[in-house]
Amino acid sequence: MDNTPLSFAPPRGMRDFYPEDMLFREHLFETWKMSARRFGFLPYDACVVESLDLLRRKAGEEISEQIYAFADKSGRELALRAEMTPTLARMIAARQGSLRFPLKWYAIAQCFRYERMTRGRKREHYQWNLDIVGAQSVLAETEVIAAAASAMKELGLGPGDYRIRFNNRALLSELLEKLGIQPQHHAATFLALDKRGKIPDGEIEELLRREGLPSEAVSSALELMAITTLQEIENRLGGQTPALRRIRDFQQAAEACGIIDLLIFDLSVVRGLSYYTGIVFEAFDIERKFRAIFGGGRYDNLLGDIGARPMTA
Amino acid sequence: MDNTPLSFAPPRGMRDFYPEDMLFREHLFETWKMSARRFGFLPYDACVVESLDLLRRKAGEEISEQIYAFADKSGRELALRAEMTPTLARMIAARQGSLRFPLKWYAIAQCFRYERMTRGRKREHYQWNLDIVGAQSVLAETEVIAAAASAMKELGLGPGDYRIRFNNRALLSELLEKLGIQPQHHAATFLALDKRGKIPDGEIEELLRREGLPSEAVSSALELMAITTLQEIENRLGGQTPALRRIRDFQQAAEACGIIDLLIFDLSVVRGLSYYTGIVFEAFDIERKFRAIFGGGRYDNLLGDIGARPMTA
Repeated sequence: MDNTPLSFAPPRGMRDFYPEDMLFREHLFETWKMSARRFGFLPYDACVVESLDLLRRKAGEEISEQIYAFADKSGRELALRAEMTPTLARMIAARQGSLRFPLKWYAIAQCFRYERMTRGRKREHYQWNLDIVGAQSVLAETEVIAAAASAMKELGLGPGDYRIRFNNRALLSELLEKLGIQPQHHAATFLALDKRGKIPDGEIEELLRREGLPSEAVSSALELMAITTLQEIENRLGGQTPALRRIRDFQQAAEACGIIDLLIFDLSVVRGLSYYTGIVFEAFDIERKFRAIFGGGRYDNLLGDIGARPMTA
Repeated sequence: MDNTPLSFAPPRGMRDFYPEDMLFREHLFETWKMSARRFGFLPYDACVVESLDLLRRKAGEEISEQIYAFADKSGRELALRAEMTPTLARMIAARQGSLRFPLKWYAIAQCFRYERMTRGRKREHYQWNLDIVGAQSVLAETEVIAAAASAMKELGLGPGDYRIRFNNRALLSELLEKLGIQPQHHAATFLALDKRGKIPDGEIEELLRREGLPSEAVSSALELMAITTLQEIENRLGGQTPALRRIRDFQQAAEACGIIDLLIFDLSVVRGLSYYTGIVFEAFDIERKFRAIFGGGRYDNLLGDIGARPMTA
């Protein structure tokens, strides 16, 4: 037996939960669970170990460089999941013929990202996932947000404490297309624009130029972010469009659900995951002093992208 | 993006929980939690990723060859935990000066073992851990077993369904010493004897001979396993001994707790983990058709072994 002193700290970036922390964690998880149930979501889970192959399919994102990957003793390439959504898509794909849609599922999932640690950000965390699969209508987005807002309320966070900023990626696409940026460049443009505020605008321009966008389009894409009203966007697009109509439908559904006061339209909300296709949203405390409280969006192509029958989600 | 077909199955040995399985899992976990609370155990948890160094300290066991180990991007040697006890010992060691003892903690922990898969045995599983640290008395063992029995009862398993076989490793030590086997060989002898029924006796004898035991002692050690009564052991040892007295105390405490009917003394119960020092136990269905339902034991040296202040557990 080795007798050199052993560190009693958890591995760097990992967390221990002593009973006092654990009781708080249980209260949090219990609140999430109850809110999910109240809104009709069923629980699911999977092992934290996933095949690297599945996680790699979502290439081109920062997150794919942050995966804890390893091989098992038979040489299988495995990884600790960085998020739950690819696993959810895999599980649904495996039983696509027998599940009843639309389905509403939730999970409280431990996820791992090997990244630079900042305040409040370790290399593993638990996240609450709420997903509706197989529903076209914006009622899906509204239900997910209403369930999240209900949990926040139980935890003491009401309309005076935070706002949910939303956008529609399809609207950004319409605007980019108007600037002459081809659809095949949109995904990369979204990921670059998502970095605003995290890296200097000059670097973002560089990213976009490297993607092959003409200089003029690059600066126009960044200028878009200064637009603050839907009216201004409508003027630019020359009238109502499918994406604008979807936003209006979403606002109406939110009004009916009593969550409209929490929502703010914000064209600069892009989200860092490449699979989002429609409405995307991010909740922040009113003063924006902290990191996002929660976020999400519609990902209508993910099931098709992993080789399953396409299905809205 | 790669377009070859992707498997929708979980990685080999891992499990998905669809809502119908998840609702059963939640019922099981909830029952464990309630029983733990009823007996005064507090919850704790830690990340499934541990430092390989900690897990390696318990060398010499099969389990240490079954660890999923990998390096992070900074070259840190990490592993998915194979059991919770080393992590518990590390967490207690880190706050040994400020925690109040004896402490009673529980965890529902996901654990990983890379091993050959058999029916009902995958490469990851959840286990319920109940631990009492800092108590000398056999009341600790009794309380742990009573809490486990209480959960079994809630789940529909009563005294007609299963038995808990127990032994005292210290008693085995006394018997081995009587056979002239030196204390430094006892740990290896325990691990070899624990393999009875899993590998042929001939192979166990080979293991013991390789450990350096004289041939005569090897066959005597195996013969010990035929003893079935405490009286016979007392005769062999020439009267009451500390280990026999501890067993009697344990039986008295079990009588007082109302769990005596579940208990059967069985000298062949050894347990496969090297850190056990005293009473060890294993619960099986009456007909012994299935794998053990639960098991455990006293590990008085573990905290000392990892470099912390020694403390009974």
